[in-house]
Amino acid sequence: MKLIRYGAAGKEKTGVIIDDVKYDTSAFGEDYNEAFFEADGLKRLQQFVDANKGKLTKIADGERLGSPFARPSKIVCIGLNYKDHAEETNAPLPKEPILFFKSTTALVGPNDDIVIPKNSVKTDWEVELAVVIGKKASYIEESEAMDHVAGYCLHNDVSEREFQLERNGTWDKGKGCDTFAPIGPFLATTDEVADVHNLRLWLTLNGKTVQDGSTSNLIFNIPYLIAYTSQFMTLLPGDVISTGTPAGVGLGMKPPLYLKPGDVVELGIDGLGEAKQVLKAYAKD
Amino acid sequence: MKLIRYGAAGKEKTGVIIDDVKYDTSAFGEDYNEAFFEADGLKRLQQFVDANKGKLTKIADGERLGSPFARPSKIVCIGLNYKDHAEETNAPLPKEPILFFKSTTALVGPNDDIVIPKNSVKTDWEVELAVVIGKKASYIEESEAMDHVAGYCLHNDVSEREFQLERNGTWDKGKGCDTFAPIGPFLATTDEVADVHNLRLWLTLNGKTVQDGSTSNLIFNIPYLIAYTSQFMTLLPGDVISTGTPAGVGLGMKPPLYLKPGDVVELGIDGLGEAKQVLKAYAKD
Repeated sequence: MKLIRYGAAGKEKTGVIIDDVKYDTSAFGEDYNEAFFEADGLKRLQQFVDANKGKLTKIADGERLGSPFARPSKIVCIGLNYKDHAEETNAPLPKEPILFFKSTTALVGPNDDIVIPKNSVKTDWEVELAVVIGKKASYIEESEAMDHVAGYCLHNDVSEREFQLERNGTWDKGKGCDTFAPIGPFLATTDEVADVHNLRLWLTLNGKTVQDGSTSNLIFNIPYLIAYTSQFMTLLPGDVISTGTPAGVGLGMKPPLYLKPGDVVELGIDGLGEAKQVLKAYAKD
Repeated sequence: MKLIRYGAAGKEKTGVIIDDVKYDTSAFGEDYNEAFFEADGLKRLQQFVDANKGKLTKIADGERLGSPFARPSKIVCIGLNYKDHAEETNAPLPKEPILFFKSTTALVGPNDDIVIPKNSVKTDWEVELAVVIGKKASYIEESEAMDHVAGYCLHNDVSEREFQLERNGTWDKGKGCDTFAPIGPFLATTDEVADVHNLRLWLTLNGKTVQDGSTSNLIFNIPYLIAYTSQFMTLLPGDVISTGTPAGVGLGMKPPLYLKPGDVVELGIDGLGEAKQVLKAYAKD
């Protein structure tokens, strides 16, 4: 299944994509949130979709897409998890995964504008594969980790490099600004992805390719990351682990290149769709 | 007002403390969560309590206390915010606040057991004053920051020093283990605290005082911390900012001293009550 949420920000309705057509599933009666994933929602949604085949309402073209799941309890990110990206940022290869958090208030839809924060001079892009947890995970073994996955999404782990690296303390300051987590277009359940460790992922800036990698180059693979993270904290249904970005971010260019208002970022992952974000300057509401 | 939540973990009911007596407020019909704080819940709860004076049911002695508020969107913590604590950990005085996150799954009641994580050898204590946000805060000025406070709580920012400092990457790994955020006994609204920047806070280990500080020694004060944090992420009603710990943690002792099963930690802050936690070894459910 491919799950979507659509409509006005903060008032999203649920839907699914079947054969490239978007259908409303509001009648299912549940948002795609922690309670949904916890109570075997994916299975029940599939049954609902099967039972209503041909009767679901098409979603009008041009409707805004939101994040394909509701606000999770946390968004955990993995740092420097592609060899080429670690090299371009002059960081040593990690011996074990680097973990940090994004404030969940950063979550937006896949094609929403990215707002450059007030006083930001180093806003950067990072195409990533995000894993959505389907089942509570605490101290789990690598061998059972994939049973805890609900599905996968495309994620731009937008990062403010000055806030992240030059403002004292952990990376968290530069990762959780509003609009810094555009996710989607859809959540693909695991059966939709033949080999999650062999997907091309790419990102263009104003039409020019800047990132072009493959999840086959992950330093730590997905079951390892889930098992590892679950040793330090309990992962809840609906939580996100974003698995890191390949080479080609602005920080790694010589000289570094950062985003400015009007820039257009497009990104995609094989089988997980594409997204397009326009950069906006911060303006007080 | 002093707000409490009580009963079985995950099924807490709400209450208030009036003249040291605990009363049930279930009939108010709302948990103390984001929606409650957002919709002026404190004011409405006060009206409910006033209207039902003498009619509220006393809570039986011995009932377990939970966290005084429901799971927030995030728990932001401030590192090294007391001069004496920065010195004992051999860290330079921060030029601006250090921010990190605790996984919200760490949240427990004030007198719940602290579970030493699997493979932990350096579990440590940190008595802290936690600020609970009452109103959405984004890019706010220091002068208006205190209008965004719902109240204050006692918090033990339990920390695993090896996970935090020796396991590669940010501090987040050592801060969000299950049971690492005992909060309470109660949430005191701002009118209950005469001067939040002049409160004694202390912690004893097995009856011996190890921390004994004052919020008058905060490097960055509360309005500064709220305004500062809100430059990097949006704070939502119910969110927590924990303001740092004074000297006297296990990491700072010569030699360092860490917690073991059976140890008893007691802590308190003037006007914000006391808490007592017993250390337990990790055991698979």
